[in-house]
Amino acid sequence: MRTPTRTPSVLGMTMTTTVDRSLRIGMVGYAFMGAAHSQAWRNAPSFFDLPLTPKMAAICGRNAEAASAVAGRFGWESVETDWHALLRRSDVDLIDICTPGDTHAEIAIAALEAGKHVLCEKPLANSVAEAEAMTGAAEKAAESGVRSMVGFTYRRVPAISLAQRLVAQGRIGTVRNVRAQYLQDWIVDPEAPLFWRLRREVAGSGALGDIGAHIIDLVQFITGENITGLSALTATFIKERPLPESTSGLTGTSGTEMGEVTVDDAAVFISKLSGGGLATFEATRFATGRKNAIRIEINGSEGSLAFDFEDMNLLHFYDNNDEPETAGFRRILVTESVHPYVAGWWPPGHLIGYEHGFTHQVVDLVEDIANNRNPRPSFADGLRVQRILDAVETSADNQSTWMEIPA
Amino acid sequence: MRTPTRTPSVLGMTMTTTVDRSLRIGMVGYAFMGAAHSQAWRNAPSFFDLPLTPKMAAICGRNAEAASAVAGRFGWESVETDWHALLRRSDVDLIDICTPGDTHAEIAIAALEAGKHVLCEKPLANSVAEAEAMTGAAEKAAESGVRSMVGFTYRRVPAISLAQRLVAQGRIGTVRNVRAQYLQDWIVDPEAPLFWRLRREVAGSGALGDIGAHIIDLVQFITGENITGLSALTATFIKERPLPESTSGLTGTSGTEMGEVTVDDAAVFISKLSGGGLATFEATRFATGRKNAIRIEINGSEGSLAFDFEDMNLLHFYDNNDEPETAGFRRILVTESVHPYVAGWWPPGHLIGYEHGFTHQVVDLVEDIANNRNPRPSFADGLRVQRILDAVETSADNQSTWMEIPA
Amino acid sequence: MRTPTRTPSVLGMTMTTTVDRSLRIGMVGYAFMGAAHSQAWRNAPSFFDLPLTPKMAAICGRNAEAASAVAGRFGWESVETDWHALLRRSDVDLIDICTPGDTHAEIAIAALEAGKHVLCEKPLANSVAEAEAMTGAAEKAAESGVRSMVGFTYRRVPAISLAQRLVAQGRIGTVRNVRAQYLQDWIVDPEAPLFWRLRREVAGSGALGDIGAHIIDLVQFITGENITGLSALTATFIKERPLPESTSGLTGTSGTEMGEVTVDDAAVFISKLSGGGLATFEATRFATGRKNAIRIEINGSEGSLAFDFEDMNLLHFYDNNDEPETAGFRRILVTESVHPYVAGWWPPGHLIGYEHGFTHQVVDLVEDIANNRNPRPSFADGLRVQRILDAVETSADNQSTWMEIPA
Amino acid sequence: MRTPTRTPSVLGMTMTTTVDRSLRIGMVGYAFMGAAHSQAWRNAPSFFDLPLTPKMAAICGRNAEAASAVAGRFGWESVETDWHALLRRSDVDLIDICTPGDTHAEIAIAALEAGKHVLCEKPLANSVAEAEAMTGAAEKAAESGVRSMVGFTYRRVPAISLAQRLVAQGRIGTVRNVRAQYLQDWIVDPEAPLFWRLRREVAGSGALGDIGAHIIDLVQFITGENITGLSALTATFIKERPLPESTSGLTGTSGTEMGEVTVDDAAVFISKLSGGGLATFEATRFATGRKNAIRIEINGSEGSLAFDFEDMNLLHFYDNNDEPETAGFRRILVTESVHPYVAGWWPPGHLIGYEHGFTHQVVDLVEDIANNRNPRPSFADGLRVQRILDAVETSADNQSTWMEIPA
Repeated sequence: MRTPTRTPSVLGMTMTTTVDRSLRIGMVGYAFMGAAHSQAWRNAPSFFDLPLTPKMAAICGRNAEAASAVAGRFGWESVETDWHALLRRSDVDLIDICTPGDTHAEIAIAALEAGKHVLCEKPLANSVAEAEAMTGAAEKAAESGVRSMVGFTYRRVPAISLAQRLVAQGRIGTVRNVRAQYLQDWIVDPEAPLFWRLRREVAGSGALGDIGAHIIDLVQFITGENITGLSALTATFIKERPLPESTSGLTGTSGTEMGEVTVDDAAVFISKLSGGGLATFEATRFATGRKNAIRIEINGSEGSLAFDFEDMNLLHFYDNNDEPETAGFRRILVTESVHPYVAGWWPPGHLIGYEHGFTHQVVDLVEDIANNRNPRPSFADGLRVQRILDAVETSADNQSTWMEIPA
Repeated sequence: MRTPTRTPSVLGMTMTTTVDRSLRIGMVGYAFMGAAHSQAWRNAPSFFDLPLTPKMAAICGRNAEAASAVAGRFGWESVETDWHALLRRSDVDLIDICTPGDTHAEIAIAALEAGKHVLCEKPLANSVAEAEAMTGAAEKAAESGVRSMVGFTYRRVPAISLAQRLVAQGRIGTVRNVRAQYLQDWIVDPEAPLFWRLRREVAGSGALGDIGAHIIDLVQFITGENITGLSALTATFIKERPLPESTSGLTGTSGTEMGEVTVDDAAVFISKLSGGGLATFEATRFATGRKNAIRIEINGSEGSLAFDFEDMNLLHFYDNNDEPETAGFRRILVTESVHPYVAGWWPPGHLIGYEHGFTHQVVDLVEDIANNRNPRPSFADGLRVQRILDAVETSADNQSTWMEIPA
Repeated sequence: MRTPTRTPSVLGMTMTTTVDRSLRIGMVGYAFMGAAHSQAWRNAPSFFDLPLTPKMAAICGRNAEAASAVAGRFGWESVETDWHALLRRSDVDLIDICTPGDTHAEIAIAALEAGKHVLCEKPLANSVAEAEAMTGAAEKAAESGVRSMVGFTYRRVPAISLAQRLVAQGRIGTVRNVRAQYLQDWIVDPEAPLFWRLRREVAGSGALGDIGAHIIDLVQFITGENITGLSALTATFIKERPLPESTSGLTGTSGTEMGEVTVDDAAVFISKLSGGGLATFEATRFATGRKNAIRIEINGSEGSLAFDFEDMNLLHFYDNNDEPETAGFRRILVTESVHPYVAGWWPPGHLIGYEHGFTHQVVDLVEDIANNRNPRPSFADGLRVQRILDAVETSADNQSTWMEIPA
Repeated sequence: MRTPTRTPSVLGMTMTTTVDRSLRIGMVGYAFMGAAHSQAWRNAPSFFDLPLTPKMAAICGRNAEAASAVAGRFGWESVETDWHALLRRSDVDLIDICTPGDTHAEIAIAALEAGKHVLCEKPLANSVAEAEAMTGAAEKAAESGVRSMVGFTYRRVPAISLAQRLVAQGRIGTVRNVRAQYLQDWIVDPEAPLFWRLRREVAGSGALGDIGAHIIDLVQFITGENITGLSALTATFIKERPLPESTSGLTGTSGTEMGEVTVDDAAVFISKLSGGGLATFEATRFATGRKNAIRIEINGSEGSLAFDFEDMNLLHFYDNNDEPETAGFRRILVTESVHPYVAGWWPPGHLIGYEHGFTHQVVDLVEDIANNRNPRPSFADGLRVQRILDAVETSADNQSTWMEIPA
C-alpha cells in the first residue's frame, strides 16, 4: 500500500501527469462481482494518477446477450463467450476472474501460463490442492514478470488500511485479543432458494468461504500475524431449500422442488495468533438484521482498534497512552486526505461506499505491475486463507479437534 | 421521485430494456462539482435503466488545459472554453452548470432561451432578483418542454428520500419540532486562505448559502411544509485571512497578504413551519471535528425521524404506535432493494457514498425529461430557498427582527 | 467543584476520617424531587467522606400520610405538615425545598431569615421579581454565614463536570458554536391530563422553565460565559387537555372536563455568548421518542465537546491538536477514578445513574457549608437563568424581538 | 421475575401497603461487593413495596475496624468478626455471602444447615465438587423452606430482563447465533500487582470465573437454553507480577517482589446450545479501552437482540416481522414503567446504574422468600455454570478438546 505518496488528482492541485502506456483488461464473469470490477476499472484512472491506463478490452461470459448488456453498460470494448478465446487474445494483458470458485484454478493457471497478469476473486479456490497449484503457477509466472493478486478487496477500505498502518506503527502494541465477525442475514428465510452459493460443488463452502475468508484475511493483514492453530464448529440450520427457478447475484425466486444444502450456514472458531494472542471468528448468514456487518476488534497492550463495515468510513482507536482523564475510543472519520486512498476522492466528511474498495484494489494492482512488484494479497496469501478454511472444516468434522496451521 | 417502480438493472433480473434515444450533455465547470457531476452522468446509465442515454458531449472551462484533463478522465467527448459557444452547439441538449453562484443566472437564462434543458448547482443564484429572473425563464421555457432543475443533491440520498416518503405517508403525523444542522470545520484554522467561497461577490454568502441552503431545502422537502417566518443571527469569527496563492476545490495554500472575509462563518435561525411546528437551523464552518455533518431530526405527533450525513446510509425512525415495551428508534440501514434508488446498486449492507446522490439526481432528471415532466427541485424551489437565505441575512443585519416569508 | 481532592471512601484505601459534626436537614416536598433528594441525603455520607454528617431530621408535606410514608421509606426522623413549623425548629440547620416553583420564594426567604441554609430546587422562582428578592435575601444571609444553593443538579453529572473542567483548562479554545437541546415526549399524547406543570400559576412556564432552565444553566456553567442576548419562539401545540382525576409526579389519569394549557409546550431561541459565539437552544416536551435527552455540543477553536443525557456516563471530546491521521471524537467513559465524583463510586465501567447527580450536589453543598464557602450555583446564578427565561417569553410574545440580557 | 405486577411505590400512585414482617440480614464481607449489597438492602424497601422488610442486622468481617466503618456508612446494626458467630445468631434470617470464592462453600453450607436463607456471590464456588455440595445442601434446605440464590446480578439489569422476556415470548424465534463477550482492561498494565483475583487458590480462576461466569449465566438465562458442549482456549499474557503492598477492591499498589500469576488473563470458547445454535464466548481482562463491556448478541429466526453493559439502559431489538422498508434495530431505552423493575425508579429517560441490579436482586429474593418460592438463579444454576467453567479449563488444558456438558 503506497497510498500516502499518491498524487491526488481531480480535486487536488496537480493534473499534469502524462500517461502513455495502457494495460488491457479481459474480465471473465459479469454478475455481482463483474459489475463491481467493471466500475473499478473505469473509475481508477478517473480519480487516481496511474502509471498505466487500464483499457477495458473484453468481457467474457457464456451468455452472450447478458455479457453484451454489461459490456454496453460499463464500456467493455468487446465480448467473448469462451474464456479460452479470451486468453488467446494478444490485445489483453490482464485477466480478471469474477466467476464462482470452482473455475478459478483452471482459468487462473491457464492465464498465467499464457503470460497474462491475473486478478482473481476470493476465495482463491475451492480446495487447498487447487490453491497450491495456483500459487505454484503464480510464483513461476512472477519470475518472468507476470503478476497475480487475489481479490480480498476489504483490505482496501480506507479504515481497514489505516488500521493496518497503525498496528504496523506499533500504536496498539502487542496484540492480545481479536474478535472478528462477518454477519449477514441473507438466507434467514427458509424459503429462500438453493442459490449456487449453497452448493458445495460450486461454492466450495458456505458462509465459511464466502465471508469467513474475508475476516481471516483481514485479521492476518491488519495484525501482520498468522493464525497458527484453531478449533471450529459449523452448522447448517436449514438442511433443504427449494430449488431456484431463477437467480441473479444474491436474489432469486424459488421453485417447488427441494434440494439439499451442502454447505455451512455458519462457522465459528477459536484460534491462536503467531504473536501469542487469542482470536475468535464467526461467519454466519443467519444474523437476522445484520446485512453486511464485518466487525473486527483488536486489543493490544498499547491500544485497541474497532471496525464495523456497516459504518465503513469509521475506525475506532483507543490509545492507552492518552491521559486517563480524556482517554476514549476515537471515532476517526476516515475521509481526510492523509488517510489511505482518500486523497483521490472527495473532501473530508464526504463518504465513500462499498465499490470504492475495488477501485483501490485496481489502483494498487496497476501500480505494482508498472513498478514490477508482486502485488499483495498474493496467491500465496490466498493459499494461506485456503488452508485455514480447510482446517476449519476438518476441525468441525472431527469434534472441534485442534488443527495446527503450518507457517 | 419514482424510484420504487424503477427496474433494477445490472444486479437484478431484467436487462432487456432497449434504449434508443440519447440526451447530449454540456457541462460548465470542472472542479469539485464538475467531478461529481461527471461521475453521475457516466454512472447513471450503467446502474439504472434510463429512457434516454446521456452522452457526455462537451465540458466547458476557461482553462483549456484543466478542462481537457477532466474531459480525459471522465470521457467528455469535447472541450469548450467559452460557455456561449457551448450554448450555440446544436449537439447539446442539456446544460449542466457547476460554476460558482455569481455566474448561474446569466448562463442558465441564456441556456433556457437557447432551448437547452438546465441542471444548475445550488444555491440557485446569489440574489433573490437573479433567482426570480431564472425562475421566470424556467417557467417560460417549460411551456415549450424545456426542463430545469436545481441541484439540491442531498434530496437523493436514499435515507433522505425514505424520510420524505415516510412523512408523506403520515408515519410521523403532524410535525412539531425540527432541528437541522449542517456542521463543517473546514476553515477553523485562521491561517486557511481566503477562498472564493469566503468572498461575497463570488459566493453570495458564506456558510449560509453554501451549506445552510441544503438544510433549508431538505427540511422543506422532507416535511412537505414551508418556512413561513424566521429570526436569525450570523457571525464572522475570523475577519481577515491570508489571500490565497493557489486553491483548488476546498484546499489551498496561503500567501502573505491579508484580505477581508466578506461572508458569514456561521448562521443560525429559528422559524415557524406552515404546519405550525417550530424549526431551528444552524450552518457553520466552525464545528471543530464535524466534517460534513448534515443532521436533521423531525418530531411529529406519531413518530420521529433522525438523519446524520456522517452515517448517510442510516435513517432513524421512531414509531409512536409501536407497543411501549419494544418501542425505540429503529436504525434503518437504507440499503434494501425496497428503499429509494437502492435497487440499482449493491446487495443489502453494501454501502453507497456521497457521489451516488448525484447519480440519482441525473436519473430522475433524465426520466423527467423523457416523460415531459417538470423536475423537482425546480427553479421555483430554488427561489424559495433564496428568499429564505435573503431573509436570514436581513434579519441578522437588523437585530434578529422577525421576517415573514411569502408563501 | 473540588472533587479531585476528595478522598475515596468505601471502595478506596482510607476510611479513617473522623466525622464529629452533623448537619440537620428539613425537607419540604416529597414527590419526584423529594425522593431524589432523600436518596441523596442518605447516600452522600455512605459513599463520600464528608466534613459534616447530614441527619435527615424532618420531612414536611401538607398530606401527613403521604409525607409519613416517604419518611418511613427513606429514614426521615420526623414529619411536619406546615413549613412554618419546620422553620421554627431549632434542630434543623438546612431547608431543602422540593416544592413547585410558586412556593419557592416565600419558603426560601423565610428560611434564610430564620438562619437556615437553603437548597432550593430549580427554577429558582416563577418570576424575576421573586428571584431578585430571593437573591437579595441570600446575599444578606451569606454575610452571617448562611449558605444557599439552587438545584441545577445536572452540573454534577460527572461527564458535565468533566466538560466544564476541560473548557476551563482551555482544551477547546474559544467557544464558537453551541447547540443545546432538552428533549422529552412526556405529553405528546393529547389525552394526557392537565398536570400542575402545565398551569402557569403553579409552574411559571412550561418546557421553558422546567427543562429549558437546565440547558441554559448548563451552557453558562460549562462555557463559563453568559448569554448576552436572544431572540425566541414558543409554541403550545395542544391548547386544551382533560383535567386530571389524579396525578403523581409525571404520571396521572385524565378526567372528562377540559382545561386550558397556559404554558409553552416548546421553546426555542438563538443567542449570543459573552465570548462572541452563537448558541441555539431548544426545550420541548413533544420530541416523540426522546425521553430525557439533554444534548449539549460545544465547538471551540481548539476542540469540541458533546454530551447526551441518554448516555449520561459518556462525554465526547474532539482535540483539534491530535494528529490528523488519528483525530476523532473520543468516547470518554466517565467512570475513572480521576473523573469528577467517580472515586466515591464503583470501579471503571460500572455506570452510575440519574440520582447520583443529586448525591454529588449534597456532597458539594455540605463541603461548602463546612468550609464557609458560598456554594454554586448560587441564587444569583438562578436569577441569571430566570432573567433569560423571562427574556425568552418576552421575545416570543413580541415577534421574536431581540432581548439584551444585562450582565 | 414477577416485576410487571409489582406495585410502583414512591413515584407512583399507591403507597398504602402495610408491611408487618421483617427479614433480618447478616452479611459476610465488606469490600466492593459488600458495598453493593449494602446499598441494595437499604434501597430495596425505599423504592419497592416488599412483603418483608429487610433489617440490616449485622455485618461480619475479620477486620473489625473496617467492618465497623462500613457498618456505620450503610446502617448495619452490629458487627461480627467471625462468621460462625454470625450464623449462631437467632436474630439473623439470611446470610449474604460477599467474600472471595474459596470461602463460599463452607459458609453457605453451614448457613443453610443453620436454617438461614443464603444469598451467595458468584461464582458459586471454586470447584465443581464444592458447587455440588452446596447445591445438595440448598436442595435439602429447601425442603424445610430455607431459600438460596446465587448472585448473578446482571440478570436483573432491566434491559437483560427484557431480553429474556422477549425471547420467552418467541419474539426472536429459534436461536441461531450467539456471541457473548465480557471485556475489561483492568490489568493491561504489567506492573499492576498480583491481586487476590490473580491467585488460583483464592479466586478459583481468572477472567473465566470472575467475568466469564456472568456471560455464561446470562446466555443461558436469556435464551432459556443450555450449553451442551464446548471447545476452549485460555491464555495468561503476563506470567509474573509484583506482589501487592496493599489492595482494596480492584485497585492497589505494587511492591518490588514478584509472584506468579496462576489464573487465566483471557478465556475463549465455542459451544453448542441445546436448541441447535452456535455460541461464542470471550472473557478477557486485556481488552484495552473496554472497562466493563458485557456484550451479548443473539440472532434468532424471527429477530435479534443486542446488549452492551457500557450502555446498560439500552436494549437493541430487531423484529424480522417489521415491514422491510422500516425494519431496523430498535434502540429501546429501557426506562419505561412497563419495563422490568423500572416502575420502582424514576420517570422515562432518567437512567439507572450498576448498583440498581443488586437492589432488584434483593427485591426478587425477598418476594420469593415471602411467597415460599425457590429463587433463581438457584445454586443448581450456579453449579451448571461451574461445570461449564470446569469444562473450559479442561478443554483448554487438553488442546481444546471437545467437552460435553451433562444436561
